[in-house]
Amino acid sequence: MPPLDEFGLIRVWTEGRQSKEMLAKAGVTLGIGDDAAVVAGSSGQEWLFAMDTMVEEIHFRNETMSESDVGYKALAANISDIAAMGGMPKFALVSVSVPPQWDSNRMKQLYDGVYMCAEKYGVAVIGGDTTSAPRHLVVSVTVIGSIEAGKAIRRSGAKAGQFVFLTGPTGLSAGGLHGLLKKPADEGGPDSVPVPPHRLVQAHQRPSPSVKAGRILLEQGWGASLNDVSDGVASEAWEIAEASHVKLVLKETHLPLSGELVAYARDNGIHPLDWVLYGGEDYVLLGTADKRHELAMKEHFRAEGIPLFIIGEVEAGQPEVILETSAGASKPIHKRGYNHFPKGYNE
Amino acid sequence: MPPLDEFGLIRVWTEGRQSKEMLAKAGVTLGIGDDAAVVAGSSGQEWLFAMDTMVEEIHFRNETMSESDVGYKALAANISDIAAMGGMPKFALVSVSVPPQWDSNRMKQLYDGVYMCAEKYGVAVIGGDTTSAPRHLVVSVTVIGSIEAGKAIRRSGAKAGQFVFLTGPTGLSAGGLHGLLKKPADEGGPDSVPVPPHRLVQAHQRPSPSVKAGRILLEQGWGASLNDVSDGVASEAWEIAEASHVKLVLKETHLPLSGELVAYARDNGIHPLDWVLYGGEDYVLLGTADKRHELAMKEHFRAEGIPLFIIGEVEAGQPEVILETSAGASKPIHKRGYNHFPKGYNE
Repeated sequence: MPPLDEFGLIRVWTEGRQSKEMLAKAGVTLGIGDDAAVVAGSSGQEWLFAMDTMVEEIHFRNETMSESDVGYKALAANISDIAAMGGMPKFALVSVSVPPQWDSNRMKQLYDGVYMCAEKYGVAVIGGDTTSAPRHLVVSVTVIGSIEAGKAIRRSGAKAGQFVFLTGPTGLSAGGLHGLLKKPADEGGPDSVPVPPHRLVQAHQRPSPSVKAGRILLEQGWGASLNDVSDGVASEAWEIAEASHVKLVLKETHLPLSGELVAYARDNGIHPLDWVLYGGEDYVLLGTADKRHELAMKEHFRAEGIPLFIIGEVEAGQPEVILETSAGASKPIHKRGYNHFPKGYNE
Repeated sequence: MPPLDEFGLIRVWTEGRQSKEMLAKAGVTLGIGDDAAVVAGSSGQEWLFAMDTMVEEIHFRNETMSESDVGYKALAANISDIAAMGGMPKFALVSVSVPPQWDSNRMKQLYDGVYMCAEKYGVAVIGGDTTSAPRHLVVSVTVIGSIEAGKAIRRSGAKAGQFVFLTGPTGLSAGGLHGLLKKPADEGGPDSVPVPPHRLVQAHQRPSPSVKAGRILLEQGWGASLNDVSDGVASEAWEIAEASHVKLVLKETHLPLSGELVAYARDNGIHPLDWVLYGGEDYVLLGTADKRHELAMKEHFRAEGIPLFIIGEVEAGQPEVILETSAGASKPIHKRGYNHFPKGYNE
């Protein structure tokens, strides 16, 4: 079976199982297939529901994330799914399956991280579950958000002629993970790598979901389509292309490159573009908007102190993602998603 | 660390983390600590949120549950938490962490079970997540329910003078599990056990959450306190005693004993009371009600074809659970919860 994170096989197992009529009657505005589900609320408001799971050895390890990092990031990743619809996070439920080697003190620290993130984003933690696990820690989080009725920004709203934007640089989290995976024993050895800048490590361990950027895009009516960069720019762009039946053309020269990332990547013999396109968990927003909004968007984001990069255009055509390289060539971008611990790392 | 399922350590890690004011302002009527959280809805309605996780080797194994059983039961257990408040289940999110040995076909079967249960209880499956897992399958489910505002039946409503009731017999699921754990290789050997009756196996693999019983208790205003029997009668009675600051006195002669269970237990040299009090996952409801309702409740439940057993009384005093034995003695019942695979089974 291919890695599940990449191909979203969940659609194969869930599509068409319940009729549109049944779902509509239950009040479901948008079911499985976007960052969050949308359900009818009251007086001009709808509810958003998102659920995301982090698994030891798949998404993190002792050497890459502290206990409180795990708790913080598990909630942050879910808040990001609410941000990707333009919504406001409100409530969370947290379920932890705890292996024998995790004692009560480590669990307390994990919840310290959960509550630190909840505090920062004004989320009320209202429930969850704790069970034993035979060997690996698993954290599942459900976040409930609120949004103006009918306004949720879907993946399917991209149209030819729009521009593609990013609300921040990408690849930082992948760069941070790269550094964290180098063991201390390697230090000074022939395979040693320079210590990654604090900002990259921070991006990996304590990501910042883009709630404010999402709210601006919704409130101003600018966001035509939107995704959060959890699986990497390539994968998120593909999801928009497929959901909207359009082609996304990204321009290599327009992709934001963090200076620290470029320096760290080059010191390690890695092409920074690999991380920028295929590194996940940066939790900035990737979306499309009408060209007539470009100026107003740039001004507004600048005034708010939030980055905004115009990185490409939407064209008519079969769903695909193309990179116009700095050399002027057009290169198809594969759908490949983010893999924390590629083969070889795992044993 | 003591088994997590038993002591609900989640309270230790979560209690007092967010102020009552913050939670109230966010619209939280009831936070962590009951079967489901209660959140303000609209026009006389509130939302219920429950989250429950099932882990391979902790809650099930290949030999005890088929793939579709796992999916069915994971959703059923969550629906039961909504029933335990008197609510109506509406939506579900399902997150599955999939180890390499689970191929796509097994996953399809798991979702077959999820959707079978969803169909039966009118639940719309609106989202979730699929990730890889290094070794063991983990299924987390969040169920969202709806309930009449201010009417949710809490654990804390028991008062001295009320009677204690059960909406069905207990111990069946534990009996079924006992049979399922005997390997075929044992058959005919000196340790062989009789095959457990189909009803016990069914109770373990395809439990029926008590949504209808919960609705009656709410609509008629009869349920003063309520819990679903997920961790066993002893544990659920203790939770009510502690949340309500009362003593629950259960009468051994009043505890419902399924004839099939008694026969199967005795054939295996097991005292059926062990399963009745300490076996979990029967998903009937345990609660308390005012004595003046006793007659009307009995008639109504009989007319609806739902069992109702009066099994004891609520008394004033320090929180505890007492069993009045058939011999007339008073025996304290320990808080011990349900353990699927006790030590010795696991290796």
